[in-house]
Amino acid sequence: MTSVVDAERSGADPAAGPLSPAELDLIHAYWRAANYLSVGQIYLLDNPLLTEPLRPEHVKPRLLGHWGTTPGLNLIYAHLNRVIRAKDLNAIYIIGPGHGGPGIVANAYLEGTYSEVYPSIGRDVAGMRRLFRQFSFPGGIPSHVAPETPGSIHEGGELGYALTHAYGAAFDNPDLVVCAVVGDGEAETGPLAASWHSNKFLDPGRDGAVLPVLHLNGYKIANPTILARIPEQELTALLRGYGYHPYFVVGDDPAAVHQRMAGVLDAAVGEIHEIQDRARRHGRTERPTWPMIVLRTPKGWTGPATVDGLPVEGTWRSHQVPVAQLHDNPGHLAQLEAWLRSYRPEELFDAGGAPRAELAALAPRGPRRMSANPHANGGELLRDLTLPDFRDYAVDVTAPGTTLAEPTRILGAFLRDVVAANPSTFRVMGPDETASNRLGALFEVTDRVWNAGTEPTDEHLAVDGRVMEVLSEHLCQGWLEGYLLTGRHGFFSCYEAFIHIVDSMVNQHAKWLKTTRHIPWRRPIASLNYLLTSHVWRQDHNGFSHQDPGFIDHVVNKKAEVVRVYLPPDANTLLSVGNHCLRSRHYINVIVAGKQPALNYLSMPAAIAHCTRGLGIWDWASNDHDAPGDGLPDVVMACAGDIPTLETLAAVDLLRQHFPDLKVRVVNVVDLMSLQDEAEHPHGISHARFDALFTTDRPIIFAYHGYPWLIHRLTYRRHNHHNLHVRGYIEEGTTTTPFDMVMLNNLDRFHLVADVIDRVPSLGARAAHVRQQMIDARLAARTYTRDHGEDAPEIRNWTWPY
Amino acid sequence: MTSVVDAERSGADPAAGPLSPAELDLIHAYWRAANYLSVGQIYLLDNPLLTEPLRPEHVKPRLLGHWGTTPGLNLIYAHLNRVIRAKDLNAIYIIGPGHGGPGIVANAYLEGTYSEVYPSIGRDVAGMRRLFRQFSFPGGIPSHVAPETPGSIHEGGELGYALTHAYGAAFDNPDLVVCAVVGDGEAETGPLAASWHSNKFLDPGRDGAVLPVLHLNGYKIANPTILARIPEQELTALLRGYGYHPYFVVGDDPAAVHQRMAGVLDAAVGEIHEIQDRARRHGRTERPTWPMIVLRTPKGWTGPATVDGLPVEGTWRSHQVPVAQLHDNPGHLAQLEAWLRSYRPEELFDAGGAPRAELAALAPRGPRRMSANPHANGGELLRDLTLPDFRDYAVDVTAPGTTLAEPTRILGAFLRDVVAANPSTFRVMGPDETASNRLGALFEVTDRVWNAGTEPTDEHLAVDGRVMEVLSEHLCQGWLEGYLLTGRHGFFSCYEAFIHIVDSMVNQHAKWLKTTRHIPWRRPIASLNYLLTSHVWRQDHNGFSHQDPGFIDHVVNKKAEVVRVYLPPDANTLLSVGNHCLRSRHYINVIVAGKQPALNYLSMPAAIAHCTRGLGIWDWASNDHDAPGDGLPDVVMACAGDIPTLETLAAVDLLRQHFPDLKVRVVNVVDLMSLQDEAEHPHGISHARFDALFTTDRPIIFAYHGYPWLIHRLTYRRHNHHNLHVRGYIEEGTTTTPFDMVMLNNLDRFHLVADVIDRVPSLGARAAHVRQQMIDARLAARTYTRDHGEDAPEIRNWTWPY
Repeated sequence: MTSVVDAERSGADPAAGPLSPAELDLIHAYWRAANYLSVGQIYLLDNPLLTEPLRPEHVKPRLLGHWGTTPGLNLIYAHLNRVIRAKDLNAIYIIGPGHGGPGIVANAYLEGTYSEVYPSIGRDVAGMRRLFRQFSFPGGIPSHVAPETPGSIHEGGELGYALTHAYGAAFDNPDLVVCAVVGDGEAETGPLAASWHSNKFLDPGRDGAVLPVLHLNGYKIANPTILARIPEQELTALLRGYGYHPYFVVGDDPAAVHQRMAGVLDAAVGEIHEIQDRARRHGRTERPTWPMIVLRTPKGWTGPATVDGLPVEGTWRSHQVPVAQLHDNPGHLAQLEAWLRSYRPEELFDAGGAPRAELAALAPRGPRRMSANPHANGGELLRDLTLPDFRDYAVDVTAPGTTLAEPTRILGAFLRDVVAANPSTFRVMGPDETASNRLGALFEVTDRVWNAGTEPTDEHLAVDGRVMEVLSEHLCQGWLEGYLLTGRHGFFSCYEAFIHIVDSMVNQHAKWLKTTRHIPWRRPIASLNYLLTSHVWRQDHNGFSHQDPGFIDHVVNKKAEVVRVYLPPDANTLLSVGNHCLRSRHYINVIVAGKQPALNYLSMPAAIAHCTRGLGIWDWASNDHDAPGDGLPDVVMACAGDIPTLETLAAVDLLRQHFPDLKVRVVNVVDLMSLQDEAEHPHGISHARFDALFTTDRPIIFAYHGYPWLIHRLTYRRHNHHNLHVRGYIEEGTTTTPFDMVMLNNLDRFHLVADVIDRVPSLGARAAHVRQQMIDARLAARTYTRDHGEDAPEIRNWTWPY
Repeated sequence: MTSVVDAERSGADPAAGPLSPAELDLIHAYWRAANYLSVGQIYLLDNPLLTEPLRPEHVKPRLLGHWGTTPGLNLIYAHLNRVIRAKDLNAIYIIGPGHGGPGIVANAYLEGTYSEVYPSIGRDVAGMRRLFRQFSFPGGIPSHVAPETPGSIHEGGELGYALTHAYGAAFDNPDLVVCAVVGDGEAETGPLAASWHSNKFLDPGRDGAVLPVLHLNGYKIANPTILARIPEQELTALLRGYGYHPYFVVGDDPAAVHQRMAGVLDAAVGEIHEIQDRARRHGRTERPTWPMIVLRTPKGWTGPATVDGLPVEGTWRSHQVPVAQLHDNPGHLAQLEAWLRSYRPEELFDAGGAPRAELAALAPRGPRRMSANPHANGGELLRDLTLPDFRDYAVDVTAPGTTLAEPTRILGAFLRDVVAANPSTFRVMGPDETASNRLGALFEVTDRVWNAGTEPTDEHLAVDGRVMEVLSEHLCQGWLEGYLLTGRHGFFSCYEAFIHIVDSMVNQHAKWLKTTRHIPWRRPIASLNYLLTSHVWRQDHNGFSHQDPGFIDHVVNKKAEVVRVYLPPDANTLLSVGNHCLRSRHYINVIVAGKQPALNYLSMPAAIAHCTRGLGIWDWASNDHDAPGDGLPDVVMACAGDIPTLETLAAVDLLRQHFPDLKVRVVNVVDLMSLQDEAEHPHGISHARFDALFTTDRPIIFAYHGYPWLIHRLTYRRHNHHNLHVRGYIEEGTTTTPFDMVMLNNLDRFHLVADVIDRVPSLGARAAHVRQQMIDARLAARTYTRDHGEDAPEIRNWTWPY
């Protein structure tokens, strides 16, 4: 797998090509222009073309931005443009070191896209002044490759996800080349380190290509980087071990690096096309050794070599603003001016401020510009899924609470047909849990993507599968984000506890969604849909480490306009919610549902009505219809989540047995956000509706799937909040039976009955006696479980008896 | 770096040694015993020695556990015991596939430790019955290598952290060998993939050794694994690229594998000792190529080859319970009995149930047993830090709110001297942010640990540094956990937003701390101390992606007994809190503090008093001392966090100017948990005290550092909760000035004044006028910022004027 260009490694002769002297001059000029525009953004308020001597008032009072990585990003950009034009490539650019924002803005500006999208930033002196001024400036644009940056699907603010995003973008986009710059800082993160293996999940026939560029500029904020400081033979072994063919581009002489980079890019793109050709014309889809590039150039290249006698270029000191204190230090100001003039702006821009024609001509045209490629504004390409009618998968429910189904298995059949109906725009992700989460019906129509070795005993592996399983929540999340951001659809099923592994990725995606809602040229993308199952209440094989319902709390901290949380209590409600989420746009939808056999409560029409309302009274479970006096119940038994719903109904059964005159209302909550005030969340209900459901003065016993305080948080402004008593997970658990788990957390039916007794004073003389019965029943249940290793049959087999 | 044993790779002749036939027989018997005890735990309720034919009632009704990984874990354990005895090694065992819990329990039982720690589980028939029954059984022990398991510091429930924990344990433990089993499932996770590079942070002179064993059993739950299915040359390249010398042990013939494993372990341990000798006797501490082992054996080895005609041994089907439905299927029951009898228990245990003497003799003695090694119960080894008097680092404060300090820089001087005074038991971790977070004083006495290439321009790198910086929050967290769990102390400083990267690791550590509090033989360890800085309000260089204060919300979901959250408002309070946290035990302490120049409010005596109380009235900022009538203020201005405190005081200043008669009380909260009810959290205050501070009927305007609803959640049971109005971060942000940030989130001084006006009806006719002034002032502030790119001087330079 050595290539002809490997031989050119050292001592490359710039005259040897592949660039002619004229091409070399032009690409170098383009790079200079991008660098000039980058430095201008970091520093200048005015005098953008340096038509007059630089004075302190031309410089921003607060110098904010990151120079160090920028010249490297600009170099790659310029060279990608060359091959895009030469080979009519369809390419996008994902920048791991997203703090190199000024470079990407500079390139979008040079390509004209920036002025098309933001007309006030024209390609003239006034526009350039505004371009510079707005950067990292109040009321302007952020310093990173943010949603505001045309051509980006990746902010790069939190490091680690460039390569998974790139692979996600490449899946099912056979013509796309995704160039992903991996900074050597980012390369130290766990998610990035795992991402290299994404090549085992890429189908060279069906999917596009990812071209990773590992950019070794040697330093992070203040430290050297690991990959820049291991022997090159170790680095080469590592990258070959990851399954890549690394091309090295090393140097600090621009001309030599330009020639080498051009040659390497030609070779790498050629290799990509060869691989794709082999797969597409000859059907050879076994995993190839994909090319990648290692670019080793100085940090802050072309910036100040030293400042105040200390080395800056090529060191960590160039990470942010290499020379500062410009208002107080004339020497520094002179150094900045010399730095800016070293790019010879007068050769790059005409007197009006426009890039000179021969430079502008180097940019690709229209949507071939990476800054204008529609794949980087995925909503433009998004098409609705073809969805089967979810009602066709319904479980038959003639009497509530009497038959069993495994909800996720029911959903699995629906998902199977979604996959079949959308063979190139929908994927299902999961960390090795698709079958465990009982979505196995998927494998009736598709397989797991797998492009590594196979054994005869393997099942459902194929290079062109639609289910993506890897034991890394980070990869699942990153792939899915990249897939959605480029205009496709997906579904992520995960053990509930371990979705916390991607908390920070969810934050970043939520921020992206929130920001893009307010950028007119960004189009909405498909929602990110989570199915959290194998949840806290049913971790029979594992125990405490697998019990954490806190992801809901995490997502509800994000903007209400982008988050939705659903707790369908049974199979039909799960189908209805699942269907709704797949149709929705630009949300993060969290669905929590069980995979174990569980009672069916609602027929499909009832499920649809209930899910549409988000929450509601279950009349069939309530007996307050003919309540005397004010017509209100004595107590409201509320529930959200499958196990809490089961325990609530079993408690209601006990209450009816012991207190036949007690008027009980059962309220089930599917859409958690409906509990909030309508002013706080779009799904929130009015105070009037809340009061109608929960009363203003009757006790509410609320059995909730997760940490109980969230229910208080969502309802503390409600009139009846002072009567609200919530049971939920209080961080008690181990490997034990389902009923022992609810007992450990005081969420069991007996405890709920005791809670009612404690809060309804009118129950009379029998109350104390029944309360003691409940305590005895708990003890008996625990004893049975301890003795037999399973829950008592009357608990396991309870059904709704009315 | 090839070794003599490399040549033995294939076709090893079991007779060739290094084990004599008798040794081979014995080690094989020991392995069989561990396997037998493992299967027994998964399946048996009774008849533990199979002294009678196996009947359905001998089998557990619910079969829970994981067999697949267990025989491999047992094999490694047995062989480690051999080298521990042969070379008097001081070793502990970290099991990535922690669901292989039965294996580790089996070994602790064989070694006698289990019965020492849990006397009811004796080494007799009754004890073995209880050993079997308790596993994954209600009231028994969890299925994983949990805190209850002697010898473990690592549950392995959430995969990814085995290798970082191992390195953390090895740091500063020169004689310790930490064997870390990495499952090939776990190897797919990001954190694990990054962990291999920990060898660049190990000092062979000062630190112990980590011996990774990559266990390729080929499958996860339902899928093959990447590393088991890439060509061996790629795998070798990858591991060499990570900087290791891999030894391969491959096979499915026990005798051959035993011989190979014994030879490889001898070679690997020999290599470790050579490396250490070179470093310690000859001072050669440059990074060596450490040995590691790749063990490729069948999943579920020695279990049922097939069940119902489907292959099980060597496939994913052996992951959990290879043969089930034993109560209904006599064929399955017979298969289980045959499987159990295949280990020939009668040769392994005497009639009383004790391991035969020649087997028991194979275990190391006393604390050399991995199950009894004190490093795996770190609290036993924990010694108090030698702490300098934190008061010596105090900032002089004669008048509150008039002088500036950078709080983290002040703390840095204290930490510097902590490092100096504790040269082998205290480390500071940070993802490349120690200097950025202004803890640079550390580098006056120590360096960053670095054992990779260096350049002349590098600063403060040394192989024996005490500061650990890598661009991976996962590694920082994992190293620190391993370091604390083995009885040492540490401090982790991190950008606030990115600590979410380790949310799930924090969950697992909190669960470990919670559980170990209730295990008598576990000793408390040092607290895990976070300093979150570069926080949401001061992300000048970055912006929205770097703004997230939600980690506090995440940790407060954990058990109150293990979490503490501090928001020191200035330098002296930070010192006091920092000192307190370093002295504390068995907590997760979260400190949020600023690094930018900020006003000093409290002298050191006042700071100590304030931090001791956790929250309190700032009399110097309040003017309700002589309040007429009931002596209560008209409004309580509460604050938590440095920026909210600043804005609150500036608002109080405005209130005094505009409403000199308004009685304002300022309450500052340092210890967030003090807001909770004393029944909910040990630091919580009584209702009486809360009422005394916050009144029962006056409006409270609470300016809070994070998401505002947390304050409601902590206080919803308080009498005056209905008058509580909280301002905080509402997920609005970008790259902008400090004051623009608070304005975007309605936390600014002007908005706080308007909030007071809206809630204090008695302000009279001037109120509406002043309110309009506040709105105008906001607009003017925003305009100034937009025009000048920085905040107006009167805002930037505000100090407390009274």
